[in-house]
Amino acid sequence: MLTIALSKGRILDDTLPLLAEAGIVPIENPDKSRKLIIPTSQEDVRLLIVRATDVPTYVENGAADLGVAGKDVLMEYGGQGLYEPLDLKIANCKLMTAGKVGAEAPSGRLRVATKFVSVAKRYYAEQGRQVDIIKLYGSMELAPLVGLADKIIDVVDTGNTLRANGLEPQELIATISSRLIVNKASMKMQHARIQALIDTLREAVESRH
Amino acid sequence: MLTIALSKGRILDDTLPLLAEAGIVPIENPDKSRKLIIPTSQEDVRLLIVRATDVPTYVENGAADLGVAGKDVLMEYGGQGLYEPLDLKIANCKLMTAGKVGAEAPSGRLRVATKFVSVAKRYYAEQGRQVDIIKLYGSMELAPLVGLADKIIDVVDTGNTLRANGLEPQELIATISSRLIVNKASMKMQHARIQALIDTLREAVESRH
Ligand SMILES: O=P(O)(O)OC[C@H]1O[C@H](OP(=O)(O)OP(=O)(O)O)[C@H](O)[C@@H]1O
Ligand SMILES: O=P(O)(O)OC[C@H]1O[C@H](OP(=O)(O)OP(=O)(O)O)[C@H](O)[C@@H]1O
Repeated sequence: MLTIALSKGRILDDTLPLLAEAGIVPIENPDKSRKLIIPTSQEDVRLLIVRATDVPTYVENGAADLGVAGKDVLMEYGGQGLYEPLDLKIANCKLMTAGKVGAEAPSGRLRVATKFVSVAKRYYAEQGRQVDIIKLYGSMELAPLVGLADKIIDVVDTGNTLRANGLEPQELIATISSRLIVNKASMKMQHARIQALIDTLREAVESRH
Repeated sequence: MLTIALSKGRILDDTLPLLAEAGIVPIENPDKSRKLIIPTSQEDVRLLIVRATDVPTYVENGAADLGVAGKDVLMEYGGQGLYEPLDLKIANCKLMTAGKVGAEAPSGRLRVATKFVSVAKRYYAEQGRQVDIIKLYGSMELAPLVGLADKIIDVVDTGNTLRANGLEPQELIATISSRLIVNKASMKMQHARIQALIDTLREAVESRH
């Protein structure tokens, strides 16, 4: 059995056409189903539908052999315990700082709200800037509007979320796309099969770019 | 201005009737609106719609004066930096361990998946049990089904989520309800007003129980 962990939304939508080129098609539409384990057209391949932030955990611990995770999630939560053999070049966006349009720098320490706490710490440490980091789990864009923080760090795609809240993108931290990740033990135990899947996916990605 | 932080779903649905008894009625239906800042019938009272896990952060840092948070969230994320003056007796549920129906105890260390990592650590430490805790952000019920963990710790209301996944509730960790929480500085600066609101809410709660 080969188990592939994915999250709903853009990653799922953009991954399914790639998997289809490897002959892997879910038997139910995962976006509409409430099921978290979805069989596919290949009897011995199944999909797990998990939170984006949980994909590396399932793969690292071997509950899934493979997964698709955003580089943002891997930068924040991904350990060293997995392989990242392929950039799928999907769900592209940018990890950025953002703040109120035209806001002045604060007189005291900069307060930054984000769910990417580790990334934020590394980013400001590299610049030698001392900041207060405030961990949030959602709706980062609210924080500057109500004075919880001066800036946020979040992923930006169209920029609509920022604009709708009177915020502007500022510093680019990283360019993000989704990666195929593989459990280390699975890569050994099912090497031929997983390598063949990686090769097929690589060809599918390359034919699109 | 008095700012009240709330999360969508059961907490919001059950808090609105209580706030209405204090004459605070949102001008838009927060469940349907995409806005995160919602004015109310009282010009100087507004609601912030944030993630359940973010409510204590907004209140502790003073971006909201008051908030409504589940005891589960307060046990996990709540610091000492806020007051918890009132049990609203809403959104009642139980924080429990759960596992596969009829599963035997594992031969090695118990693996427990949960988003309540601090609670889990305290719970097992008090019992002198050594366990491996696996942090998840959502869909805990999937973990035992795919071998990521032996047990989960999650909130249980009707038990439907567990049953639908072949799991059963096991040990009770805590009985949960939502609490009114108050920023410490706000409680000093706007004492009369906040105390009056607490008193009104207390009467509303008592008249229901
Ligand atoms: O620049 P935009 O096109 O507006 O996209 C950015 C939005 O997308 C992300 O949220 P996502 O929808 O992935 O869900 P989340 O809120 O659960 O993170 C991010 O947190 C922003 O809210
Ligand atoms: O016993 P039940 O009546 O089935 O309720 C339990 C469910 O409720 C909670 O999730 P919630 O709906 O609060 O949302 P969440 O998944 O975002 O935590 C919990 O995580 C379970 O999934």
